[in-house]
Amino acid sequence: MLIIDALQYNNPHRDRFEEWRAGGVGCVHVTLAIWENARETLSVIGQWNRLFEQNADLIALAKTGQDIEAIAASGRTAVVFGFQDTSPFEDDIELIEVFHQLGVRIAQLTYNVQNRVGAGCWEDDTIGVSKFFGRNVIAEMNRVGMLVDVSHCTERTCFDAIEYSTRPIAITHANPQEFVGTDIELNRRNMSTDLIRKLAESGGVIGLSNYPKIMKGGSDCTLETFLDMVAWTVDLVGADAVGLGTDFYDGWPVSQIKWWRAGRWARESAVPITGFSDWPSWFQSSRDFPQVLEGMKNRGFSAEEIAKIAGGNWLRLFDESFKPAGGS
Amino acid sequence: MLIIDALQYNNPHRDRFEEWRAGGVGCVHVTLAIWENARETLSVIGQWNRLFEQNADLIALAKTGQDIEAIAASGRTAVVFGFQDTSPFEDDIELIEVFHQLGVRIAQLTYNVQNRVGAGCWEDDTIGVSKFFGRNVIAEMNRVGMLVDVSHCTERTCFDAIEYSTRPIAITHANPQEFVGTDIELNRRNMSTDLIRKLAESGGVIGLSNYPKIMKGGSDCTLETFLDMVAWTVDLVGADAVGLGTDFYDGWPVSQIKWWRAGRWARESAVPITGFSDWPSWFQSSRDFPQVLEGMKNRGFSAEEIAKIAGGNWLRLFDESFKPAGGS
Repeated sequence: MLIIDALQYNNPHRDRFEEWRAGGVGCVHVTLAIWENARETLSVIGQWNRLFEQNADLIALAKTGQDIEAIAASGRTAVVFGFQDTSPFEDDIELIEVFHQLGVRIAQLTYNVQNRVGAGCWEDDTIGVSKFFGRNVIAEMNRVGMLVDVSHCTERTCFDAIEYSTRPIAITHANPQEFVGTDIELNRRNMSTDLIRKLAESGGVIGLSNYPKIMKGGSDCTLETFLDMVAWTVDLVGADAVGLGTDFYDGWPVSQIKWWRAGRWARESAVPITGFSDWPSWFQSSRDFPQVLEGMKNRGFSAEEIAKIAGGNWLRLFDESFKPAGGS
Repeated sequence: MLIIDALQYNNPHRDRFEEWRAGGVGCVHVTLAIWENARETLSVIGQWNRLFEQNADLIALAKTGQDIEAIAASGRTAVVFGFQDTSPFEDDIELIEVFHQLGVRIAQLTYNVQNRVGAGCWEDDTIGVSKFFGRNVIAEMNRVGMLVDVSHCTERTCFDAIEYSTRPIAITHANPQEFVGTDIELNRRNMSTDLIRKLAESGGVIGLSNYPKIMKGGSDCTLETFLDMVAWTVDLVGADAVGLGTDFYDGWPVSQIKWWRAGRWARESAVPITGFSDWPSWFQSSRDFPQVLEGMKNRGFSAEEIAKIAGGNWLRLFDESFKPAGGS
């Protein structure tokens, strides 16, 4: 069965690739950049070029749905390149196609704060996709075949992106706020029921996450509760719109959190840095994917539903999204 | 009498500097950058270094109010460096001090569209200064001694900037919407009466502009009508809050308008490019400043009022704004 994890942001290392293999993960969407600008992102791509060369037995870059299937079938993990902010595009609409040429297939519009394109979830909810650069960026991503991701955006930015995008979009890593409740550390990261419905109606997929700071119960969230959330979301929008997006990370020093939370735009994190949360006991690394799938089976999900949620839905969306508009 | 023009954006050339001298202009705030990034802006500063060297008989860089007075007293024109967008700061709060070290003393938060800091006047009026980078940028500009300019911003961004800034701010080049009326090409560039009042209450100054696209009557606006606008604004907020900011430009090809209107963020201008407007007959270049001042005198402005409006108010605001916070 094809397993696709719609978001991991590790400090890339062979240990992670071995975990992917041990967990039977056929495809992982990895983050190349958050605040990195164009030039810095080129260096990150250069680092990945070396990683692909040195770990060719374990991983390969996927630019299409076909690539994902072929790489997974070869017993390796397909890596899909993505950004968690549009920073690498800087102010230049033309850089979207350039990064697409380099293999980037997914870009989140903004990470937590406001940029030229839209607003992140820490900003006021009233701010959406900007009328000029924001709409242009979405149109250009639609044209070249780059999937719009809104996981860290304001609700308004999410709704606007669904409206302006001519192709389905993704929430690669977030949870339903109504199920999780608002009493968690990073509540603003989770998504309203109306939004998840709208996303699904438009053909999009949401990747449910076991990142402790956005799960019910945090690090103590049980597999049972996580599966309750999967079931709740499937009940809401059906099994075709739900996938997995762990938001798993490993190998970073705690100081990395400051980079994610403050970039270069603040001297201190605007949100208190509480350190890395412990991953739940049932998901210590990608090796534990089989446990999650086993749990789904025990809970009564059908084989067909499990196949869709584990990877089938992402494969469908990635396959159709990574092609240029009008392409075949 | 010290004449200060709070905004010109010429393609820099000795001809302009000669016009400044012929018009008796003691200080001009020039634009170095709109969409230029940090690296590109360094090159623009490099070009100005050569211009100062080659035209030392006519111009010199001013970093303080004292510099402005001394350079003007020497029979030359003091040049104040400024940006019309925060693009040169890119995503880095630390670049504000770096550009201050290089002489930059004024920065407009955004030019027409949304950026990380706030929103320009083409965007929805509801978008203001962003909660994170935007407030940090204003605080840092306050700290190092860089004047906040909001001439091309949304009303909300203007009001927010006044609120968050601990020091007075500027509208270097815009006109009162209530006087000019809304039936002009670039109406969104002009400012509401409430905003101009608030700006003045907080110690700021507005630079009235004879840029045809934002004047009543456009290129046919008479000197009489322009002076009506000066009088109207002085009646509104007093003679201490009003200055001149022509928005004069010269030496650009028409294609430059596309750069200003679209930067790299759009393939075409979002606003129709109607070409450069003819400057009004009574202001063909900086040589015509004496005509404007003569008009003010004939119209009954007192010598004291004319001195304030022609340059005294800008000198006061520049002098206090260009010092580091707590500096003397």
